[in-house]
Amino acid sequence: MRRRILYGSIVMGIIVLLFCGDVWASDAVVPTVTPRDGLDLSSLAACLVFLIPAGLTMIAVGASEEGRATTVAAMGLVGIALGVIVYALVGFGFQFGGLGLISNLQGAEELVSEWSPVDRIWGPGWGIIGLDGFLLLSDAPSMELLSLFLYQGALAATAVCIPLLALARRLKIFALLGMALFFAVLIYPICGNWVWGGGWLSQLGANLGLGHGFVDFAGSGTIHAVSGFLTLAAILAFGARLGRTEEVTKPPTVHFPLLALLGTFLLLLGWFGLAAGNPLLTNNVSSVQILLNVLLAACGGILVSTLYIWFATGGPDLLMVTRGTVAALVAVSASCAFVAPWAALVIGGVAGLLLPLTIYLLEVRLRLDDPTAAVAMHGISGLWGLLALGIFADGGSGRGWNGMGAREYLDIARQGVSGLLVRSGFQPDWPQQFYAQIVGIVGLLILALGLSWLAFRGLDALRSVVAGFKAATTQVADGDHS
Amino acid sequence: MRRRILYGSIVMGIIVLLFCGDVWASDAVVPTVTPRDGLDLSSLAACLVFLIPAGLTMIAVGASEEGRATTVAAMGLVGIALGVIVYALVGFGFQFGGLGLISNLQGAEELVSEWSPVDRIWGPGWGIIGLDGFLLLSDAPSMELLSLFLYQGALAATAVCIPLLALARRLKIFALLGMALFFAVLIYPICGNWVWGGGWLSQLGANLGLGHGFVDFAGSGTIHAVSGFLTLAAILAFGARLGRTEEVTKPPTVHFPLLALLGTFLLLLGWFGLAAGNPLLTNNVSSVQILLNVLLAACGGILVSTLYIWFATGGPDLLMVTRGTVAALVAVSASCAFVAPWAALVIGGVAGLLLPLTIYLLEVRLRLDDPTAAVAMHGISGLWGLLALGIFADGGSGRGWNGMGAREYLDIARQGVSGLLVRSGFQPDWPQQFYAQIVGIVGLLILALGLSWLAFRGLDALRSVVAGFKAATTQVADGDHS
Amino acid sequence: MRRRILYGSIVMGIIVLLFCGDVWASDAVVPTVTPRDGLDLSSLAACLVFLIPAGLTMIAVGASEEGRATTVAAMGLVGIALGVIVYALVGFGFQFGGLGLISNLQGAEELVSEWSPVDRIWGPGWGIIGLDGFLLLSDAPSMELLSLFLYQGALAATAVCIPLLALARRLKIFALLGMALFFAVLIYPICGNWVWGGGWLSQLGANLGLGHGFVDFAGSGTIHAVSGFLTLAAILAFGARLGRTEEVTKPPTVHFPLLALLGTFLLLLGWFGLAAGNPLLTNNVSSVQILLNVLLAACGGILVSTLYIWFATGGPDLLMVTRGTVAALVAVSASCAFVAPWAALVIGGVAGLLLPLTIYLLEVRLRLDDPTAAVAMHGISGLWGLLALGIFADGGSGRGWNGMGAREYLDIARQGVSGLLVRSGFQPDWPQQFYAQIVGIVGLLILALGLSWLAFRGLDALRSVVAGFKAATTQVADGDHS
Repeated sequence: MRRRILYGSIVMGIIVLLFCGDVWASDAVVPTVTPRDGLDLSSLAACLVFLIPAGLTMIAVGASEEGRATTVAAMGLVGIALGVIVYALVGFGFQFGGLGLISNLQGAEELVSEWSPVDRIWGPGWGIIGLDGFLLLSDAPSMELLSLFLYQGALAATAVCIPLLALARRLKIFALLGMALFFAVLIYPICGNWVWGGGWLSQLGANLGLGHGFVDFAGSGTIHAVSGFLTLAAILAFGARLGRTEEVTKPPTVHFPLLALLGTFLLLLGWFGLAAGNPLLTNNVSSVQILLNVLLAACGGILVSTLYIWFATGGPDLLMVTRGTVAALVAVSASCAFVAPWAALVIGGVAGLLLPLTIYLLEVRLRLDDPTAAVAMHGISGLWGLLALGIFADGGSGRGWNGMGAREYLDIARQGVSGLLVRSGFQPDWPQQFYAQIVGIVGLLILALGLSWLAFRGLDALRSVVAGFKAATTQVADGDHS
Repeated sequence: MRRRILYGSIVMGIIVLLFCGDVWASDAVVPTVTPRDGLDLSSLAACLVFLIPAGLTMIAVGASEEGRATTVAAMGLVGIALGVIVYALVGFGFQFGGLGLISNLQGAEELVSEWSPVDRIWGPGWGIIGLDGFLLLSDAPSMELLSLFLYQGALAATAVCIPLLALARRLKIFALLGMALFFAVLIYPICGNWVWGGGWLSQLGANLGLGHGFVDFAGSGTIHAVSGFLTLAAILAFGARLGRTEEVTKPPTVHFPLLALLGTFLLLLGWFGLAAGNPLLTNNVSSVQILLNVLLAACGGILVSTLYIWFATGGPDLLMVTRGTVAALVAVSASCAFVAPWAALVIGGVAGLLLPLTIYLLEVRLRLDDPTAAVAMHGISGLWGLLALGIFADGGSGRGWNGMGAREYLDIARQGVSGLLVRSGFQPDWPQQFYAQIVGIVGLLILALGLSWLAFRGLDALRSVVAGFKAATTQVADGDHS
Repeated sequence: MRRRILYGSIVMGIIVLLFCGDVWASDAVVPTVTPRDGLDLSSLAACLVFLIPAGLTMIAVGASEEGRATTVAAMGLVGIALGVIVYALVGFGFQFGGLGLISNLQGAEELVSEWSPVDRIWGPGWGIIGLDGFLLLSDAPSMELLSLFLYQGALAATAVCIPLLALARRLKIFALLGMALFFAVLIYPICGNWVWGGGWLSQLGANLGLGHGFVDFAGSGTIHAVSGFLTLAAILAFGARLGRTEEVTKPPTVHFPLLALLGTFLLLLGWFGLAAGNPLLTNNVSSVQILLNVLLAACGGILVSTLYIWFATGGPDLLMVTRGTVAALVAVSASCAFVAPWAALVIGGVAGLLLPLTIYLLEVRLRLDDPTAAVAMHGISGLWGLLALGIFADGGSGRGWNGMGAREYLDIARQGVSGLLVRSGFQPDWPQQFYAQIVGIVGLLILALGLSWLAFRGLDALRSVVAGFKAATTQVADGDHS
């Protein structure tokens, strides 16, 4: 009882002390905090883009069997972290080292190092990789450049997440991280350089007369097709070894499709940020139209994949519908700034139909073990999106894209990126733009599928040699860390 | 071993090739990509609005029994897709075909077709339905109009989702889609025209002297009450048939209330976008005040419904609390731009109390089978919100709303939408504004409850005739596709 | 059959009626709805901040055992509601009653009441608590002030949620709400006043020459350390009584870590809003840099905590990784506007390493029962973040912070908040800034740990007396309402 009285006294004392002073009201202090300015909309939209790897993680987690789910979830987080950090250290430099050559973005004027294997007498624009702007972390770059980094870092994180989520629990942790590093350090930034950093694919128009060069507005190819086919390369390269352990004889049971639903909603919001927040967006495309196209493509993908699955199986397969939605978003990314709304609807619908067919083909016919459907959802859909741009781009937007025709194009004033089905008053750019898309696809596939497969086989061979050597000396195999 | 050496050689060769060229650094290329402008805040806020159907889907999924959850989830996605696409094709035209008559929005000047059953000598503003701006997809509309479409498309998607979520697994898939189409094509756009498109409800002030006409800022009535009572009509019209199959004798067990919690968080964010992103917002309401009112109403709803449920059952019923939050958000939508923060708190609190009482009344007393509580959460709460505006609107905002009193109102300069409890210095507009709200409620209910009930009964009758005819000829009933 | 014919007739009649009038197209009506302006980016960012309590709730729910999860979830919602409402009624006044003395924010000029226990001859800036701006709800404040309230209300909601989530199901409902009220009414606003409202901690630089005074940009200390140590005080004060009921003998099993993953994604988005949306941000810090620092710290926290846990346990502990991410975000909050990106990465990484060590220390060594890890995740991480600012602040940002050195600082033009490792060209402010941080930590801990512990012990004693008295008279103990 005495302790209680003690406590009470102390509390009362403090309260009394607090209310016995003078209220100090003055107007003599110089105001020092002023209202802020400076938060720009593009940065906020870039923040939304991080919902894309988040949503992909939720979808992958929802599609995992129960025991695998937490590992997949952790890999999603690790993928974001790895993607951003590696991109800050080297990726940004490889991708945008020559940005100053093609853009007058504030602060980019010092990034003028683009390596090219051919001499300049072949013409400018055969750049392969940027070689400046590394260790962005240590400089004091302009705000515009930081904003670009924030946005592109989210894209890199997305790209790195896709194979990590697909291959989690199939490779040992170090092989997995090695694969992710290889992709994040080398493959993704080079692809990004080719398409968005002033590399040779973006200059196909100027150099070879192929339309506006390879056009991929928001990463159908550069992010998704590349990630999807890198995943395919890894499955092909490491697959045999996995088959031997007989872990993958039957497809995993779906654990929790409702998380995939949730992931889809996050993804849609992230895609709005992706499509509208691009800091390299020119004045000649419209943010609202882009948002609308993204939305309509998603709607098309939802409807078509739902109807197809309903007819095929007699009920909704939630996981397939969510994947159809993602496929539609992937497909429309390349062209969302350049097509009419009806075309976006068609592109999304076709992607929503392609997806279940491709999954059937890959899983049942080709017996490819791809639990997150990365190849179908990102790879094939991405290719469709790249081709669709060559068909549906209507000429009304993207004037001056990749340096082609800032004033007029095909002798028509204000014509922009064009495919086959242009708006009335414009000239079809067929099949030049379509050819450019095909050249770009081939180029990206050589990197993402060919080079990656070689590297993975090489690594696997190296690992076997080392493991054989180790086994011969110690007879101790290191345990499965997954 | 030889293959390993081969692979290694190829990899090394490529690496050597990559690093033997010249770095190509020049400043002679004309910069062509300029920093963007043009992403406007309103569009980004409109993107957030899509979190509302997402959140409603999560809440409905969380409240479903386990076997029904994935179907409900798929219906949420389908509702969004259907709502947006139908709205793009015809709904927008029905709703805003006469927008140019009441708004100087850029690009709306060509939308001047509003159909009216009465001659113009009765005065302007007895419009029933717009008849222009269809197939928005095929035009080249202004950015402002696209922005309006993006925002209103999200509202249409929300409206369509509500009955779809409520009736999923209760109707066969085609009946369900037919019901959704009927709502999306006809009922919702007409309601929207009456309230926001210059139709007769918005002109009650000019024509009949009822305050500022029917005022519903963000859809308490136009979206939620209409959807809720359409759901009621469907339950009443199709209910008997369902009862016969004895599927609904006991209420379904709640599957996963934690998803409902998550849905509530998404919903709150979506509602911020809904309230602040309205492209038709006049200069005379304040975005920050709206956001604050939405927030305070939600807080009131949370507290009151939690306390009520705690006293009534001795513990928190998470599902009821989340629904109480939604009910509060629904209720404050109509008036969030026009009331003081304390009134928003009261409106939300009353909605949070009304909700469990209404659910008890509907489910236990009236034995209405409404698993997502659409009638209580959207219907009744929406009506309360519409009435609350007539009471709490404080006159300080919304000057010139619906064309009433752009300079002064009730002889007081700068007075806006007013109810009974106005701010000091303003004149109560009682009971005129309240009457306007009641007339609006009656009008919307005739459409949403009366006309829908008739249509559903008609369809049901038609279906019975056809089914009877079919049965008589083939004796084969088509299976349950749900 | 006759009823069917009746229904059909009515439907047809209505349709005929609807389509027999004249289309009314005119251009004679005065447009009254004009496009809006006024939604500002800061308010939208403030809306995102509400994802922080949402994310914390999801993480706490994911970490709960199954039976406790819905109560925890409901407490998260209640925490948001209580935090916002109490903040509106009294907290804002206590925190920002003297805002006009230090800021020229529009509308703050009337908030000039700051109570100080010492006379002004000791110098200005020994303020303890604000005494103006209560009942914000009833005034007609400026938009800037409402925007500040919206943002700070989200912070108050976050702070109140933390102990509520930690102590849900451990205290009876009224003790829990009482604790939350005590925190929301008194402790949190006073801490906020000291740091952000012009109180004595913010004036340490002017009064005692300690650097820029206590600097806590986005609440490492003011929100998180304070909440964490208040939770510790409650655990210590009420712990014994709980131990007696033997409910907490073993740690609860984790229920659903995937929800924690989801919470982390929401949290990251919320933290972007927190860091960039501050309405009191001066012109001298950069929003993009802040966003980037927040992102990099989160990445550092993810990587380090994942690697540590992987090495320690041989697999990813998803809950630990999500908590490591939160700890990193907490730690970087104080300094995100003032450090270089590499430093943010280091701060986050250290926080990600500290977290599992602290949890081990607290749970296993000290046998503290803290199911949500609030003490480690918010308390210890927050302290690390405050200290880190004294080390890593690079001098390049925050010129004129807390009224120190608007033109030059330490004789160097444009130098801002500085620690030990400043950018080249600036002067280290060591150890003055570090001392300021330590003084601030001591001050906040006295309030959050000391005063709270006293109050909780006092309340507990009071409760025992009352309960003993009641028991003696009625022999009826009130049941457990939780």
